[in-house]
Amino acid sequence: MAEFIPPGTRWFDLPTPFPMKRGGALHGARLAYETWGRLDADGGNAILILTGMSPDAHAASSDAAPAPGWWEWMIGPGKPIDTRRWFVVCINPLGSCKGSTGPASVNPDTGQPYRLDFPELSIEDAADASAALLRGLGIAQLACLVGNSMGGMGALSLLARHPGIARSHVNICGAARALPFSIAIRSLQREAIRLDPQWNGGAYDDAENYPENGMRMARKLGVITYRSALEWDGRFGRVRLDSDRREGEDPFGLEFEVESYLEAHARRFVHKYDPNCYLYLSRSMDWFDLGEAHAGDTARGLAAIEGVRHALVIGVKTDILFPIQQQEEIAAGLRNAGCDTRFLPMPSPQGHDAFLVDEERFGPAVAGFLRALPAAALPSGKVA
Amino acid sequence: MAEFIPPGTRWFDLPTPFPMKRGGALHGARLAYETWGRLDADGGNAILILTGMSPDAHAASSDAAPAPGWWEWMIGPGKPIDTRRWFVVCINPLGSCKGSTGPASVNPDTGQPYRLDFPELSIEDAADASAALLRGLGIAQLACLVGNSMGGMGALSLLARHPGIARSHVNICGAARALPFSIAIRSLQREAIRLDPQWNGGAYDDAENYPENGMRMARKLGVITYRSALEWDGRFGRVRLDSDRREGEDPFGLEFEVESYLEAHARRFVHKYDPNCYLYLSRSMDWFDLGEAHAGDTARGLAAIEGVRHALVIGVKTDILFPIQQQEEIAAGLRNAGCDTRFLPMPSPQGHDAFLVDEERFGPAVAGFLRALPAAALPSGKVA
Repeated sequence: MAEFIPPGTRWFDLPTPFPMKRGGALHGARLAYETWGRLDADGGNAILILTGMSPDAHAASSDAAPAPGWWEWMIGPGKPIDTRRWFVVCINPLGSCKGSTGPASVNPDTGQPYRLDFPELSIEDAADASAALLRGLGIAQLACLVGNSMGGMGALSLLARHPGIARSHVNICGAARALPFSIAIRSLQREAIRLDPQWNGGAYDDAENYPENGMRMARKLGVITYRSALEWDGRFGRVRLDSDRREGEDPFGLEFEVESYLEAHARRFVHKYDPNCYLYLSRSMDWFDLGEAHAGDTARGLAAIEGVRHALVIGVKTDILFPIQQQEEIAAGLRNAGCDTRFLPMPSPQGHDAFLVDEERFGPAVAGFLRALPAAALPSGKVA
Repeated sequence: MAEFIPPGTRWFDLPTPFPMKRGGALHGARLAYETWGRLDADGGNAILILTGMSPDAHAASSDAAPAPGWWEWMIGPGKPIDTRRWFVVCINPLGSCKGSTGPASVNPDTGQPYRLDFPELSIEDAADASAALLRGLGIAQLACLVGNSMGGMGALSLLARHPGIARSHVNICGAARALPFSIAIRSLQREAIRLDPQWNGGAYDDAENYPENGMRMARKLGVITYRSALEWDGRFGRVRLDSDRREGEDPFGLEFEVESYLEAHARRFVHKYDPNCYLYLSRSMDWFDLGEAHAGDTARGLAAIEGVRHALVIGVKTDILFPIQQQEEIAAGLRNAGCDTRFLPMPSPQGHDAFLVDEERFGPAVAGFLRALPAAALPSGKVA
């Protein structure tokens, strides 16, 4: 899986054994991450970014890795997350295949990839691993914790399980628990992978025996739910492909621009993502519920978060996967936690993925929030 | 495919040859339909119902077929479509597998099922076939044409291609053209079927060589888009299956109620629907654009409809497949056609399928519209 890992990646060895919430433990596990900017002597200017399901840690370019990152317009000198002021860390989540330990990694007990022998993965495990990395980097308290999508779940888990770990929080298109529509979509994506004969109970390879059809289906369904009908009406309408891009006379072949767009997305994704990692990370989102320790009361789970003084919660009105009611829920809960919280419902047409592409709306929102944070780090508390 | 056809079905032989819009012609084709009530001597009390993609013609029970139909609460004596006043006809669409001629029917040229040799199917073909049936039944002009979902497309096509065929129209969760989100969903459903090795280029059977996995996937994705996230939040939340309904310890097996619900829907569907028919009907919706004859201007296509004096257009605010903007478009277009049009945006939580289940909202709306129609048939014009 080495080709999945961007240059510029650093590694952090997790404590061994690293216990997993749903049972079992990892031995010799590590996290992949990248950093930008410089950590102040008092460790008070750190920002951690937790990503969505599929990105690697390469959120932005750097001297070590000059290729543009997936949030290039957000992170850098003079950019909304200004690396002249902040020391920025981005983690590839535990369970992924972009450098961190996951189902595609070698199980030290056997010398073979874990595959389905990887222990059940939870959002909480990824949060605990992130907390361990922060300790390792000498960061007792983050100036700000930023989480997008799945990373928005992970951020809430990190705040809940490690009180005082961040003074401020930006939650973008996140959720405090999975709801049935998104569970249904992810369940169908997993079924597409698992029904592919090439998946072979998890024992495929990266070459000819890779479940390409299942991954294509899963990715296409993902892209459909990451964007919005509104955006596509304007972008594709009923435009057809030119005849030289058609697949002959097949009435079921690619004909509309939107079909070609999905196909291109799927082709870029397959063979660059590990199917078992996809299954594990996908299921970890279904299982996530911040209310779990509070008798299923999500609001109480949010209200129990400690130490976050300022928060910015952003949702997108056209998001069907993490609908805006879920970000309203997060904002209301953080207010109940005593946090000065701003809720921004964005009218972006791009749906869930707006945070990746709607620079004009998301850039100033994040920049303004970070600019208004207290200049000096407050005395940092112990990290739980 | 005989087991798919409900008792009570009648058949009408279409003119031979029956030319198809996109090329080719059918020979010896027929439509399956059912009727309720009695046709007046002047033929002026007829209501035609055009269905969504998968239903048969058994919309309601009758003496000949006492089993409840798919719109049982809507059609019958004293019900919203009151069969004491109206003669009601429901057609299984051309191209389906529930009695009408389609890809699963025997091709008289070969004695074998058409499969992929069936000519390309369009919404317009189904509309023309419906017009032929009306002529055959001695109905020069409908008192009301009712179309749901795909049938809402077919109804608009019937009105456009056969001016004067209906004095009034009820369009429910319909669309005047397919938009890219719904095209994307249907494209993925077709891909799931076609990628199933059992589909075998369309040459499967109904027993062991049936593309069950592909059809399961297609149906699950259908159900996801037929309902709404809002409904599922209230109905399923994060409720888990009892352990005796779980699939052992498989972390990717059915665990949440919503997963079990999708599974049950899929199981009821497969082997009861013909996969090639699914492909053909699905694609016919993608191709539909009432503006096609008007340089892609849908509004002009709607405004050109003639002879409809009263219309009721109903949309559902939570419908993601045929979003409510599409019914607003229909209503605005019919007004431009000089039709007295009422637009009802329903707050039903059930999404696209609300018209099948939200009896409390849809029943009175349809009943009120039909009750207000002129009691006597106006002199009927020639059907084009």
